[in-house]
Amino acid sequence: MSKTVRAHGPATVANIGCGFDILGAALNCPGDVVTAREVDSPTVLIRKIEGDGGKLPLDPKLNSASVAVSAMLDALDRPCGIELEIKKQMPLGSGLGSSAASSVAALWAVNTLLDNPFSALELVPFAMQGEKAACGTAHADNVAPGLMGGFVLIRSSEPPDIITLSYPESLTFTVVHPHFELKTSDARRVLFEKIPLKYAIKQWGNAAALVAGLIKEDTDLISRSLEDFIIEPQRSTLIPGYNAVKEAALKAGALGCSISGAGPSVFALCESEGVATLAGEKMSAAFKAAGLSSDIYVSSVNAEGPLILD
Amino acid sequence: MSKTVRAHGPATVANIGCGFDILGAALNCPGDVVTAREVDSPTVLIRKIEGDGGKLPLDPKLNSASVAVSAMLDALDRPCGIELEIKKQMPLGSGLGSSAASSVAALWAVNTLLDNPFSALELVPFAMQGEKAACGTAHADNVAPGLMGGFVLIRSSEPPDIITLSYPESLTFTVVHPHFELKTSDARRVLFEKIPLKYAIKQWGNAAALVAGLIKEDTDLISRSLEDFIIEPQRSTLIPGYNAVKEAALKAGALGCSISGAGPSVFALCESEGVATLAGEKMSAAFKAAGLSSDIYVSSVNAEGPLILD
Repeated sequence: MSKTVRAHGPATVANIGCGFDILGAALNCPGDVVTAREVDSPTVLIRKIEGDGGKLPLDPKLNSASVAVSAMLDALDRPCGIELEIKKQMPLGSGLGSSAASSVAALWAVNTLLDNPFSALELVPFAMQGEKAACGTAHADNVAPGLMGGFVLIRSSEPPDIITLSYPESLTFTVVHPHFELKTSDARRVLFEKIPLKYAIKQWGNAAALVAGLIKEDTDLISRSLEDFIIEPQRSTLIPGYNAVKEAALKAGALGCSISGAGPSVFALCESEGVATLAGEKMSAAFKAAGLSSDIYVSSVNAEGPLILD
Repeated sequence: MSKTVRAHGPATVANIGCGFDILGAALNCPGDVVTAREVDSPTVLIRKIEGDGGKLPLDPKLNSASVAVSAMLDALDRPCGIELEIKKQMPLGSGLGSSAASSVAALWAVNTLLDNPFSALELVPFAMQGEKAACGTAHADNVAPGLMGGFVLIRSSEPPDIITLSYPESLTFTVVHPHFELKTSDARRVLFEKIPLKYAIKQWGNAAALVAGLIKEDTDLISRSLEDFIIEPQRSTLIPGYNAVKEAALKAGALGCSISGAGPSVFALCESEGVATLAGEKMSAAFKAAGLSSDIYVSSVNAEGPLILD
């Protein structure tokens, strides 16, 4: 009988306020589950996708999970056939790193199947190929935290330079996903190609200070640093009720609140599960007042990254 | 007899590659010495300035040291007269934080004279007033490291939010000061008001990574992070021989090399005094090949900030 491994790949919050394209964190929930099976024919196939409402491509050249696994097998230079089954357990196009969760789970399952030829860090470039297939850009700010766990700094994407950061253990995310579609391409299109130097300086001051706050476990500094001077002012206009949602989060005691990835989900970073739960309820109520139903995810930071389930 | 206190204020390297306007570090040498004396008349006066070639203002409303001390005394709300003597021991307008070295020494001397009503951190806003008098902008990236010692992150200038950073003890700076005048106003004028988002992202990735590298004592990461995508390409054109000087520093083994403050001095950050000494010689030789004589300062990082000399 052919070997089978099942792995969980975590949802991730990319950008984290001031850290556009350079910061991300992994969540304990939600996440996707991928089952990988070794098969005779030396190709990568997707046998089944559940929970996507038929929206994701079964074509292995287009799906982030199969593209990532193909890139990995190419690097290994040994003929090997893999069949994948993807169980989506999180919303698509939500800003929670859905394509990354699938590719991370798939890579982790196949890596385990093949007796771990790669470290988590070494898998990042393969997962980035999956991101390129899914959304056109080989960005690392979802796949790197997804694979490494915790908070991750992406100093550079080409070539990838990934730095894991320590952080206060009690930090808890609330992510509220409002039920409307915001295409990543639209979220990218609103961004100006040039930005004022004086706001860029504030942004790199905050990005550097957020990293210092995380490593020094200084929650006051984390809170002061989360403000995004560049991206949020442009993208938040695409999310109905955004200002009220953010105000609700901060009023509930969140350290900071901003757009998760390219949105439309909004995250609040909190000092405890209690604050995160309250913030989530208030944020969801603010979305409701703007005419949008939403899902709430409350999660501590996932320190491990992907997980083998069997 | 009236009380007298003499203090040393350190030279500082501001910006440090990718950290334009947000990072600075204090040096053990060079630096200025200021003597403060309590006098009866409730005003702040400058009795003498040595070593400036007559270039600095004796008018207490215009000199960084007296302006800083006046701001401090105003905040204390008790009538007090101070007479200052300034001994410049470093070049003016060199990019080594000359105005800050004087104001930091003056504040530290007067603070000691008055039995330390303020902490070093609390003195920063007064020193920033001195910077405003000296160069038009109340920036903190020289005065904050000057007062606090070590590497300092300025998350925000208005209001000041100053974070001290730990760092590898062996780090050593070489600063090479070429003998020509580069006005800070000219160095500011070449900067574009708007910058490309894609380079800004690289810059905040590097600024965040440099802070992580310092705190984690990861010299490889420090080296990878020092690159400045925004300011150096614009300002380096104002410094004859710059590219050759930088190449010489890196070839000598420096972790990184960039413009100190607004220039024209160029710093190299090195892993040891040996490398720093060699880098300084090679950099100075490269300036010479470009037709400029220069001074070399090799210094470990000044962990203490200002120093009482008596």
